Amino acid sequence: MTRIATYPGTFDPVTFGHVDVVERAAELFDSVVVTVAINPSKKPLFTAEERVRFLSDALARFENVRVDSFEGLTVDHARSVGAAAVIRGLRAVTDFEYEFQMALMNRKLAEEINTVFLMPNEKYTYLNSSMARNLAQFGAPIDEFVPAAAAKALREKFGEPNG
Amino acid sequence: MTRIATYPGTFDPVTFGHVDVVERAAELFDSVVVTVAINPSKKPLFTAEERVRFLSDALARFENVRVDSFEGLTVDHARSVGAAAVIRGLRAVTDFEYEFQMALMNRKLAEEINTVFLMPNEKYTYLNSSMARNLAQFGAPIDEFVPAAAAKALREKFGEPNG
Amino acid sequence: MTRIATYPGTFDPVTFGHVDVVERAAELFDSVVVTVAINPSKKPLFTAEERVRFLSDALARFENVRVDSFEGLTVDHARSVGAAAVIRGLRAVTDFEYEFQMALMNRKLAEEINTVFLMPNEKYTYLNSSMARNLAQFGAPIDEFVPAAAAKALREKFGEPNG
Amino acid sequence: MTRIATYPGTFDPVTFGHVDVVERAAELFDSVVVTVAINPSKKPLFTAEERVRFLSDALARFENVRVDSFEGLTVDHARSVGAAAVIRGLRAVTDFEYEFQMALMNRKLAEEINTVFLMPNEKYTYLNSSMARNLAQFGAPIDEFVPAAAAKALREKFGEPNG
Amino acid sequence: MTRIATYPGTFDPVTFGHVDVVERAAELFDSVVVTVAINPSKKPLFTAEERVRFLSDALARFENVRVDSFEGLTVDHARSVGAAAVIRGLRAVTDFEYEFQMALMNRKLAEEINTVFLMPNEKYTYLNSSMARNLAQFGAPIDEFVPAAAAKALREKFGEPNG
Amino acid sequence: MTRIATYPGTFDPVTFGHVDVVERAAELFDSVVVTVAINPSKKPLFTAEERVRFLSDALARFENVRVDSFEGLTVDHARSVGAAAVIRGLRAVTDFEYEFQMALMNRKLAEEINTVFLMPNEKYTYLNSSMARNLAQFGAPIDEFVPAAAAKALREKFGEPNG
Repeated sequence: MTRIATYPGTFDPVTFGHVDVVERAAELFDSVVVTVAINPSKKPLFTAEERVRFLSDALARFENVRVDSFEGLTVDHARSVGAAAVIRGLRAVTDFEYEFQMALMNRKLAEEINTVFLMPNEKYTYLNSSMARNLAQFGAPIDEFVPAAAAKALREKFGEPNG
Repeated sequence: MTRIATYPGTFDPVTFGHVDVVERAAELFDSVVVTVAINPSKKPLFTAEERVRFLSDALARFENVRVDSFEGLTVDHARSVGAAAVIRGLRAVTDFEYEFQMALMNRKLAEEINTVFLMPNEKYTYLNSSMARNLAQFGAPIDEFVPAAAAKALREKFGEPNG
Repeated sequence: MTRIATYPGTFDPVTFGHVDVVERAAELFDSVVVTVAINPSKKPLFTAEERVRFLSDALARFENVRVDSFEGLTVDHARSVGAAAVIRGLRAVTDFEYEFQMALMNRKLAEEINTVFLMPNEKYTYLNSSMARNLAQFGAPIDEFVPAAAAKALREKFGEPNG
Repeated sequence: MTRIATYPGTFDPVTFGHVDVVERAAELFDSVVVTVAINPSKKPLFTAEERVRFLSDALARFENVRVDSFEGLTVDHARSVGAAAVIRGLRAVTDFEYEFQMALMNRKLAEEINTVFLMPNEKYTYLNSSMARNLAQFGAPIDEFVPAAAAKALREKFGEPNG
Repeated sequence: MTRIATYPGTFDPVTFGHVDVVERAAELFDSVVVTVAINPSKKPLFTAEERVRFLSDALARFENVRVDSFEGLTVDHARSVGAAAVIRGLRAVTDFEYEFQMALMNRKLAEEINTVFLMPNEKYTYLNSSMARNLAQFGAPIDEFVPAAAAKALREKFGEPNG
Repeated sequence: MTRIATYPGTFDPVTFGHVDVVERAAELFDSVVVTVAINPSKKPLFTAEERVRFLSDALARFENVRVDSFEGLTVDHARSVGAAAVIRGLRAVTDFEYEFQMALMNRKLAEEINTVFLMPNEKYTYLNSSMARNLAQFGAPIDEFVPAAAAKALREKFGEPNG
């Protein structure tokens, strides 16, 4: 039996925390689809194409991982790729509450798909895309926090003050 | 590749919330080992043998699930059965904090084993073994909350006032 | 002695979670005033008139409930209708923190009015207006989540893809 | 229509935080029954009779409040006095999680009885019976924290070092 | 050895909760620099100059406190003034999560600077700048919540309905 | 002006998380008194003398740190050594709630003493004395988690299975 999981997110841009979650998911499932969620009512810093490119670049070494994007409900995408699970990373209590509600709603919409929560390495507890963007905005070094392609794009976006 | 998960717990006694988590785990892994943790410094209501029996009775219908018990570290047991994952159910924020710390410690002790958090049906949010014991103590009906063998034993333990 | 309670909110739009809270409040108080809070600095999806209409439609069966709207401080409105209590629904820990702060501030402003927290059915834990809007935006079925008039309006707003 | 509420608790002993909650409940309900919960598996500092006496002493000024004790399920007691609501005080997030679970379980056992959460004055945020006992144990002044009869008994219990 | 602490924030505008934190910091450190954080991607109600002025007015009585502003990373500013610590006020659990993540990130960027959390008086638990702005918007009295210069400016901003 | 801080705790036994907090406190204060709290109603694994010895051993390298023990209220001890601050480590949200309540109570008892919260390195998030005892009980390696003298004593206590 082949088990597929999706890992949906905004990934604006991907951080090493996301990569850490993907690595764990890739060990637990036969195939993992990392999916850039396109939400017309939000204004991300990077386009969906850019976000897919940064992920593809960062995740190329995982043989059973592929990257795509979708606009719509997480569970519709999960169903369309035949996923048994939706992966979410949990870093903190605040994450948990929101994720819990999303997971309950997704279960309501698609009872057969389970949300699976994985925990990134604790050294990524403090890290999310928003914090990476803030650091880049003020010229702080970001190579420890986001993969190379995303880091380069962040520096270009904000004038590469410490490039 | 065969993926094995363990689901350790006190299970004093098993509730339908636990069964719900097992059902989800059994869909995501090739094999699930539900494990009664024996802790000499705690005094459970039921012996390890009883707790294993209640679980075996409640989980008999799952072909890829078996029940055992162990005394020692969760990760040592997980390694001994070749598990890639340790399953934990998450019901609430308070759960989460403790589970998060245990998961980090377990990762420290066995980097190759991931903790996987699953969420039981929301109708089991209010349910744990302690609450089931309290209900039984005061003669409340418990058949909706714990599987048959455990319910029978709880009623016998507390004088079966509403048997 | 007649006891009146207000239940203020944005209700953009009303969900079955809100209706569940109203039903409980209507049992505990002689009269309940459900109040659409008008905040000029926010941009709701529906106008105050629409939100009042959806509520009136959903709550018509409760004899001791009426719907109105107000612009200003919650406690000023509560005082103007002679309320002894302000009702708030609590679904989750995140709710709680914000609600706690609002309740403390309201007590500071009007010591004689108590905030009363009620808990909707756990099946509405995952449900709020924002989630209902998201579902509608992506064409998911919403009739289980929001009352008829609001559901119809949501479908019209977002092109009624699954109408 | 007469509306009755119960306010169950261990009250070991009553604090001014409890009194504050009773005062609010007494304004919202026609009659309030404050109930000392007797749990044979716990070992309180004071007997049920003492706890009832301290409460009666502290609450004598409220005309629509009476004090009793019970052994059994909260909802069975609530039903036996014809209560429409069970009152609980909420001081903090940790309170909330436990209370939420108890409230859900109670609703499961008695759908017609609602749990109503009230918030004591913020100056009692730090106060519970356990902390009062600790203060008394180390001879700290406690008259600001517990009503007179309970304070006297605490001092006697611990050798009245600052009597 | 002279120990300096910075207390960065948006202060839009300063509240008595902030003043309370400054007072505590001023007792624990030889020198405290209260710093208005300038974030080009946010739109505060008051300009940085106004926010500095309100703070200077409110904090004039503290001899070892001075006020400035900065645009950039908190830790860069802390380093530039030779600070050993960054002060943050903690009022509630929600505060804590965000503050915890910021503190971890700041430590990553500047290991030698510690974040020190102080707790304002519990009577300010409900108070933040956003709530003060809301009160002013609806004409509620604000003199208990924000220092004189800020209160005056808030009233002017919102038409001084209760001036 | 000389500023003294106390850091009270059970320290049963000291972990590297505690040491990390002491190190930070020693940079921020002129003198730090680490204090083993003696509570006659608790049954620690190690005697107060042992706990003091483990701390003294682990903290010998800090010139401005000394270790003592006390029985009574934290604030009474803090006053007796002339402390301006009580240090507490914060690792997680659950910590925070309890610490917040203790800090408010301590402020009530001694307004002039501030509780100062410090955050240990995130690698100690998962670590507390109870977890260290559990690891030792099951023969897991503990040298990464507790200082040498405490680790040796834990191994002796539990039969030194991996000594």
